[in-house]
Amino acid sequence: MKELKSFLGGRWVAGGGTPHTLLNPATEEPLARTTAGAADLGAALAFARDVGGPALRALSFAERGALLKSIAGALQSSRDELLELAIANGGNTRSDAKFDVDGAIGTLLAYSEIGNTLGSKRFLVDGEGLQLGRSARFHGQHIAVPRRGVAVHINAFNFPAWGFAEKAAVALLAGMPVLSKPATSSAMVAHRIIEILHEAKVLPEGALSLLVGSAGELVSLLGAQDVLAFTGSGETGARIRSTPNVIAHSVRVNVEADSLNAAVLGPEVEPRSDMYELFLKDVVRDMTQKAGQKCTAIRRVLVPRELSSSVKGDLVELLSAVKVGNPAEEDVRMGPLATAGQLADVRQGVGRLNGRIAFGSLSGPFEKGFFSSPILVEEPGDAVHEHEVFGPVASLLPYEKDPGEIVARGNGGLVCSIYAEDQAFVEKLVLEVAPLHGRLFLGHPKIELSPGPGTVLPQLVHGGPGRAGGGEELGGPRGLAFYLQRVALEGSRPVIQKLIG
Amino acid sequence: MKELKSFLGGRWVAGGGTPHTLLNPATEEPLARTTAGAADLGAALAFARDVGGPALRALSFAERGALLKSIAGALQSSRDELLELAIANGGNTRSDAKFDVDGAIGTLLAYSEIGNTLGSKRFLVDGEGLQLGRSARFHGQHIAVPRRGVAVHINAFNFPAWGFAEKAAVALLAGMPVLSKPATSSAMVAHRIIEILHEAKVLPEGALSLLVGSAGELVSLLGAQDVLAFTGSGETGARIRSTPNVIAHSVRVNVEADSLNAAVLGPEVEPRSDMYELFLKDVVRDMTQKAGQKCTAIRRVLVPRELSSSVKGDLVELLSAVKVGNPAEEDVRMGPLATAGQLADVRQGVGRLNGRIAFGSLSGPFEKGFFSSPILVEEPGDAVHEHEVFGPVASLLPYEKDPGEIVARGNGGLVCSIYAEDQAFVEKLVLEVAPLHGRLFLGHPKIELSPGPGTVLPQLVHGGPGRAGGGEELGGPRGLAFYLQRVALEGSRPVIQKLIG
Repeated sequence: MKELKSFLGGRWVAGGGTPHTLLNPATEEPLARTTAGAADLGAALAFARDVGGPALRALSFAERGALLKSIAGALQSSRDELLELAIANGGNTRSDAKFDVDGAIGTLLAYSEIGNTLGSKRFLVDGEGLQLGRSARFHGQHIAVPRRGVAVHINAFNFPAWGFAEKAAVALLAGMPVLSKPATSSAMVAHRIIEILHEAKVLPEGALSLLVGSAGELVSLLGAQDVLAFTGSGETGARIRSTPNVIAHSVRVNVEADSLNAAVLGPEVEPRSDMYELFLKDVVRDMTQKAGQKCTAIRRVLVPRELSSSVKGDLVELLSAVKVGNPAEEDVRMGPLATAGQLADVRQGVGRLNGRIAFGSLSGPFEKGFFSSPILVEEPGDAVHEHEVFGPVASLLPYEKDPGEIVARGNGGLVCSIYAEDQAFVEKLVLEVAPLHGRLFLGHPKIELSPGPGTVLPQLVHGGPGRAGGGEELGGPRGLAFYLQRVALEGSRPVIQKLIG
Repeated sequence: MKELKSFLGGRWVAGGGTPHTLLNPATEEPLARTTAGAADLGAALAFARDVGGPALRALSFAERGALLKSIAGALQSSRDELLELAIANGGNTRSDAKFDVDGAIGTLLAYSEIGNTLGSKRFLVDGEGLQLGRSARFHGQHIAVPRRGVAVHINAFNFPAWGFAEKAAVALLAGMPVLSKPATSSAMVAHRIIEILHEAKVLPEGALSLLVGSAGELVSLLGAQDVLAFTGSGETGARIRSTPNVIAHSVRVNVEADSLNAAVLGPEVEPRSDMYELFLKDVVRDMTQKAGQKCTAIRRVLVPRELSSSVKGDLVELLSAVKVGNPAEEDVRMGPLATAGQLADVRQGVGRLNGRIAFGSLSGPFEKGFFSSPILVEEPGDAVHEHEVFGPVASLLPYEKDPGEIVARGNGGLVCSIYAEDQAFVEKLVLEVAPLHGRLFLGHPKIELSPGPGTVLPQLVHGGPGRAGGGEELGGPRGLAFYLQRVALEGSRPVIQKLIG
């Protein structure tokens, strides 16, 4: 059985901790094990800071962008192998696996292109020069320079490839070395990616480290120039933020956490219209893609009360047609949940929603594997606005007049989607719910190949206030800010202009 | 004796807590008292959110900018009264008081002007529209909208006017209602400002509240749409950040805390040269202005070892000429510290620095009042890089070769100043220390009326990583981001373009 080692301090190291076995969640067959956990994390962080940091900072944005292109190229060359691993270790259908792996490659290429645009500079020039005094000599100019620490990335189990890439692409382009920690249960894809990149020798020494297994004391070893980006549960996010050294040294922390993403069908939409069909399609995709294990998946389905039984009937029909099973089989459209623990959480979570199950079941469908059927809940209790069930589960919420008020009860989310023809309805709802979200998806049937609200694009920010963790990632060049220190230069104009070149 | 009430929920309310007496720190004469502390803070926050928020959001940026201009005008009309209050309650010289009050008015006017530039929009359009798909129809656009909560501002004792204004100007322009809490000991200026604004009726109801006295449970009442900007000690900043609801609801917190600001004299600067004299002047100003009670004041004076005795001699001579005394007297150049507690902290802090006192004394000079002489320390221990002595105290640190390494030991600061002729030296040091600071001041004798590193300009960001709290305020339009939620709109191009107008 394959043993997954960590790549720390420039070499592969096994940990001395308790062994953990990684499974195929469809068959429960053991695939790999990791014994990581006892590595010298302090030395690993120092190596990244002292060796990887200077090497990256010596490069221009265009050169760092070229590194990202090489990473994307190396992943592209091993795409089939990565897809197979995602199917086996992640319970992904082939389509799910492509969503993860191709998403990773696409994000790397998008940031490579941004590097190209930023060109030969090693730091960003932020805004125009400013005349500060009566004479033009007293001058101000903001710049943004790479932080001198390590970018620690703690990723969720659901996107081992994309989760790695969407964080690493931005940090590396900004000029910060990365230490990436995938979730243990689905670590095979991220581990293989680091192996591939190491073999291909595409990155400077120290620029990229991997920690497999428990994070141990990692967070408590971070200092003022380090940054931490975390994707996962709100509970773990809160624990990270409460860590004394994180608070004492103002360690920058970005959290992407729980989100009760709502999809709102407008009041004037006709059943069978293109808008109506798009809405149904997006809800079903979000419930079933990755078995609903997407932080951006629709959890709350808001429909005008008069359309509620029509929508329910149509969703039940569409969900009935989704074949659940081992994703290695070709006609399967939804695989298992990632782990036995996730399956248990989903079943318990549906219980907490305290509604009626309009479609699906809390048991079966198979004896082996961590499978759940898609589950559509109706008439849920208040928990639907507070508790994210991270699986193929959504709740139907009829509204009378004011969907915005219902959306707001989620107390901050990653994305809200609106499917309506009436521009006035759209505008009112957008302005009402915008302060509560990082992204608003306005469904429109005339957009070809619309990815739906569940897909995160590198050009648009990803994150959300409140329950969603208060974070912001991606957004094209906006994402770089997290890894850079903005600093105002104040002084004589010729001195500053020479300095920024 | 004047009783300072809070202005909460649209009316003046006295608290039921323990009374606190505000003094003249030069004479120890009682000036006012406050009994605030038992107000219904939950109701006060709700009033600001529900009444002040909608009123501000209904205005355009230009209209909010006009409000700021009215505030500035009202303060300008009462300028003499405010200066007198600052002299009496703050221990300010007239020059210190102008620095505070005129700084407040200038910052309000600067943001009023930004409002004018942003014009008739109610939210910001952030960046260009983005083509997201193969066809131009699939479109992305970031906007930034006012948060729906309250902007709570907890200010330090040293700048009751400017501290209020530099935070309130940005929040109000962004469209968020403000609840401002001045430090109790010097609250008379901030309290009078709110009285003046209330009498002048320049703001919509609920847009501006004042809490005098203890913050009580204020921080623990904040939710996901509220934001908190704090200026003060790192210790209090850490306590705020650790508050469970702040973590649970991802309340945005901006902290401006401790900073061991360094001033570096370049190796090739000739004694008596204009650059050398500017350096001396800025060090002495920062040690004595506001009795050194500025978060941006120079604390660490780095000079080439060969210039160290020359600089020490000159600083001692300049400091000897500074007349300390009751700032109500005209020829006094430095007043007392703000409180008996501050004086005790300064004396204890000098002890912690564990060096030799090259100028000044830990006792006297008067029996009444909270006075300290300026104190120049030489050969301090490591605490000089860790402990901020918040008074008229600086330490002389000779360097051999690498001032950047010494600067970095401060572990993050608000500002570092560099006085050097050699462009290569300046560039190397700037790039080395930039990741550790929010602002770098490059001293130059040809700049007329140079304000020195201790002055915060509204156009430039104010804040710093690590020990300085990791915050960022001001910076012209950059400061607005803290009060806005950035959200990506994703959908059909005509729908989005119509929406953003």
